[in-house]
Amino acid sequence: MKCSIPKGTRDFLPAEMARRNYIFDTIREVFKAFAFEPIETPSLENLSTLMGKYGEEGDKLLFKVLNSGNFMEDVDFTQDYHKVAPRICDRGLRYDLTVPFARFVVQHRDQITFPFRRYQLQPVWRADRPQKGRYREFYQCDADMIGSTSLLNELELVQMIDAVFQKLGIEVTVKINNRKVLAGIADLIGAPDKLVDITVAIDKLDKIGIDNVRAELSERGLNQEQITALNPVFELSGSANDKLQQLEVLFNGNAVGTKGVEELKELFGYIDLVQPACHVELDLTLARGLNYYTGAIFEVKAHNVSIGSICGGGRYDNLTGIFGMPDVSGVGISFGADRIYDVLTELDKFPPDLGQSAQVLFINFGAESMPYCIKCAARLRSLGISTLVYPDNAKMKKQMDFANRSRVPYVVFVGENEIAAQNLTVKDMATGTQNTFTLDELADRLKH
Amino acid sequence: MKCSIPKGTRDFLPAEMARRNYIFDTIREVFKAFAFEPIETPSLENLSTLMGKYGEEGDKLLFKVLNSGNFMEDVDFTQDYHKVAPRICDRGLRYDLTVPFARFVVQHRDQITFPFRRYQLQPVWRADRPQKGRYREFYQCDADMIGSTSLLNELELVQMIDAVFQKLGIEVTVKINNRKVLAGIADLIGAPDKLVDITVAIDKLDKIGIDNVRAELSERGLNQEQITALNPVFELSGSANDKLQQLEVLFNGNAVGTKGVEELKELFGYIDLVQPACHVELDLTLARGLNYYTGAIFEVKAHNVSIGSICGGGRYDNLTGIFGMPDVSGVGISFGADRIYDVLTELDKFPPDLGQSAQVLFINFGAESMPYCIKCAARLRSLGISTLVYPDNAKMKKQMDFANRSRVPYVVFVGENEIAAQNLTVKDMATGTQNTFTLDELADRLKH
Repeated sequence: MKCSIPKGTRDFLPAEMARRNYIFDTIREVFKAFAFEPIETPSLENLSTLMGKYGEEGDKLLFKVLNSGNFMEDVDFTQDYHKVAPRICDRGLRYDLTVPFARFVVQHRDQITFPFRRYQLQPVWRADRPQKGRYREFYQCDADMIGSTSLLNELELVQMIDAVFQKLGIEVTVKINNRKVLAGIADLIGAPDKLVDITVAIDKLDKIGIDNVRAELSERGLNQEQITALNPVFELSGSANDKLQQLEVLFNGNAVGTKGVEELKELFGYIDLVQPACHVELDLTLARGLNYYTGAIFEVKAHNVSIGSICGGGRYDNLTGIFGMPDVSGVGISFGADRIYDVLTELDKFPPDLGQSAQVLFINFGAESMPYCIKCAARLRSLGISTLVYPDNAKMKKQMDFANRSRVPYVVFVGENEIAAQNLTVKDMATGTQNTFTLDELADRLKH
Repeated sequence: MKCSIPKGTRDFLPAEMARRNYIFDTIREVFKAFAFEPIETPSLENLSTLMGKYGEEGDKLLFKVLNSGNFMEDVDFTQDYHKVAPRICDRGLRYDLTVPFARFVVQHRDQITFPFRRYQLQPVWRADRPQKGRYREFYQCDADMIGSTSLLNELELVQMIDAVFQKLGIEVTVKINNRKVLAGIADLIGAPDKLVDITVAIDKLDKIGIDNVRAELSERGLNQEQITALNPVFELSGSANDKLQQLEVLFNGNAVGTKGVEELKELFGYIDLVQPACHVELDLTLARGLNYYTGAIFEVKAHNVSIGSICGGGRYDNLTGIFGMPDVSGVGISFGADRIYDVLTELDKFPPDLGQSAQVLFINFGAESMPYCIKCAARLRSLGISTLVYPDNAKMKKQMDFANRSRVPYVVFVGENEIAAQNLTVKDMATGTQNTFTLDELADRLKH
C-alpha cells in the first residue's frame, strides 16, 4: 500500500515543528504582552455560518463535510455540484479565523467583557489549487480587538507587528492605508459606486503595474476622465504627513475622504511617538481584497525577500452585523506563519539551536547497570532535563551512531566502577572529552 | 441569523483555554523530559489511509470530506450511503493519532532515527453520537516509541503517566495487562480462535459485571466448559507477583502465555525499582478494545471520580505492517485531555491563578496623558509584562468596571502631576491601596 497525504497538506517532522513553534511562540508572546486572550473555535462550522461570507469564489473553496446516515434519497443528483453539495453537507471546515470569531462574539456576547481582545492560532482549510507556498491546510495567527473605535487600537497593532518581526530578526515595511480615503477618492472621481472595482484594481498595482491597473479600471467601467482623475493619487509624494496634507486639499469638503485623512493623521501621530524599529509608510495604493474593511488597513512586506505580504489586517465596523449584532467595531491583524517560515528560511534567520531534544543519553550496557541508569535518568527527568536511556543492549557503535544522529550533547557510560563509586562517566560529544561527575554535578551542568 | 456550532463541537473561552493549556503544557513538559519529539500530521488524510483501520464501526464514524468539482455524473446514487460516500469523498478527517503516525513512520522512514519517540497533541474527529463527555472534535495527547522491543519503554510510559498525574495532583491507578497472557488464556481454555471475543467480553467486566460477561462469552460461541475454565483467571489474588506466579503454573508449557507472564514480571520488576507515586496493579481482566495491541496494555483510572479511563495504551508489534513496513514494534500511550479536564474540575484541582491576562491597566484620561501612557506601556510590554491601555476616554466608572471584570491586579492613573514628576499612581486592586512608583519600580514589582 502506497503511503501519501492529500495534495496541499503536510507532515511536520521534529525539526520543522521546532521552527514552526519558534514562530508561534514569538507571536504568542507578543499577543500576551498586549493582553490579548486566547480562544479556540471548532474546526467544523455549520455551512450556513460560512457560506456567502467570502464571496462566490470563497464558497467554492470551502471544504464541505458529508452528512452521516441515509439522507440521499431526497436529493436530486442531476443538478450542478454547487446545488447538490449544500443538500448533502451541513458542515464545512473553517476557512479563516475572522468569521468564526464574529460568530463567537455574537454567540458569547454575555460572557465577554468589551472591549475584548482575543488571539487565535489555529489551522484553516481552503480547497485552493496547491502551489509553492500555498497549502490547503495552514495556520493563521490572528489578534483582534472588538468593541472600541479608538485609533489607539490601530497603533497597538503596528507596535505588535514591530515587536514580532524585531524578535524574529526580519526587517519589514508596514504599509498603511484607510478605506475611507479610498471611498473619498471614488467620490472624488465621480464613481462612488465603483469603490470595490477601484480597490480590486488598485490592489494589483504591485503585481501588474500602473498601465494594467488603468486597463482593468477601464474594463470595470470607469471612463477615461475618471481614470485620469485618479492620477493625483498615484502621484502623491513625500512623507506620510506630506501626502496627507496634499490629500486633504484634494478632498476639500468630501466628508468620508476627509475623515479618512484625519484618522491616518492621528494614527501616524501615535506611530511617531513610539518610533517603531520597522519602516512604516502610507501607501495609498494599498487596498486589500476583503470587503469588510471600513477604516485602517495594514500589510507587511519583508525586505530582501520576494514573497507576498506576511501579515495584514484592518478595521471593520460591522463584521458581527451578519450574525445579528450591529455596530460593533473591530480591528485586527493576521500573521501568515507559513510565509514567515519561508522568509526565515530564505534569510537564514532561524536560531541554530532549535529543536534539540534529548540533552543526555545513557548508554545501555545490559541488565547489570540498568537499575542504576534508570534511577539516575528518573532524577534528571524530574528536574525537567530531557533524558534518554538507550532501550536495547545494542552494540556500542549502534548506540553511539544513534547519539550522533540525534545530536545528543552528552553521553553517559555506567559500568561496575561507576556504580561502585556512585558516579557517572560523561562524554561531551562536542569536544570529545570525558569526565567523571556525580549525578548532581551533571544535573547542574545540564540545567543551564 | 441564529448563531450556533455543530453538535458535539465546542468554543473555548479564555478561562477554558487557560485550563486546557495547563493540561497540555503539563503533558508536554513530561513528554519532553522523556525526550519525545513533536510531530504533526494533516487533519485531512486520504480515506484509503483511514478506512478499515478502526473496524466496521470506525469506518462509519469517519468524517468524510466532499470532493470538489463536478464528479457526480458517474456515481450511482441509488445505492446505500456507505457505498456512495467513498465514491464522492477521497479524504476524511483524522480519527486518531496512531494510524496517521504509522503512515508517517512508513512515509518518512528515511528521515527518522530509530528507535524514534514522537509526541503529538492534535484534535481528532469522530461522527459519534454526542453525549456528556463525548465530543465529535477532541484532542488526543499521544506519545509512542517505535523501533525497540525493550520493556524499558513500557517502564518509561508508566513513569510518564506517574509524572503527569503527580504534577496535575490527580491520584490514579495504572492497570496493566499483557495481550500475550490473554492469548495464553484463550489457548488454555481451548478457544485460541476466540481471543478477540474473549477480550471484547472481558473488557466489559467493569461495566456489566461477571455474570453478564459470562452470558456474552456464551453468545460469542464459547461453551460452558470453556467459560468455567476461565474462572481461575478471575479468581487470581494477591500482589502482581503472586498473580504472575499462579498464572505461570496455569500456563505450564503454553508458549505465548508464558512469554506474557515473563514480560509482565520484567516490567513489574522495573516498576518496583522506580517506586512510582501512583498505584500500579496487574489487572488480568483489562483487555482494551483495539485489536492492534500484541503485548503490554495500560489503562489509567482516577481515584474518587466516577469517569472512564483517562489514559491508555499498549504495545503493537505490527502497526506499520498495514502500510507495507513489517516488523517494527512500537508502544505508546494516549492521554484524554477532555476527561482529565473533567476530573480536575470535579476534584477542584485546577490552580486558582490560571488565565490571568493583563497585569496592569492604564486608565485613559484623554489625549493629554496618552503619549506618556503609550510610552510607559510600550516599555512594560517590551519586558514581557501583559499591559493594557484603556483605548477610549470613557467615564471612570466604566473603566474601573472593566478593570474589575477583567481581574486586572494593578490599575495606573496618569494625570498632570504624574507626567510632571515622571512617575505613576498605581492602585493595587486586591488591597485597594494606592502608591506612587517610577516606571522601573512598577516593572520590578510586576516581574518579581
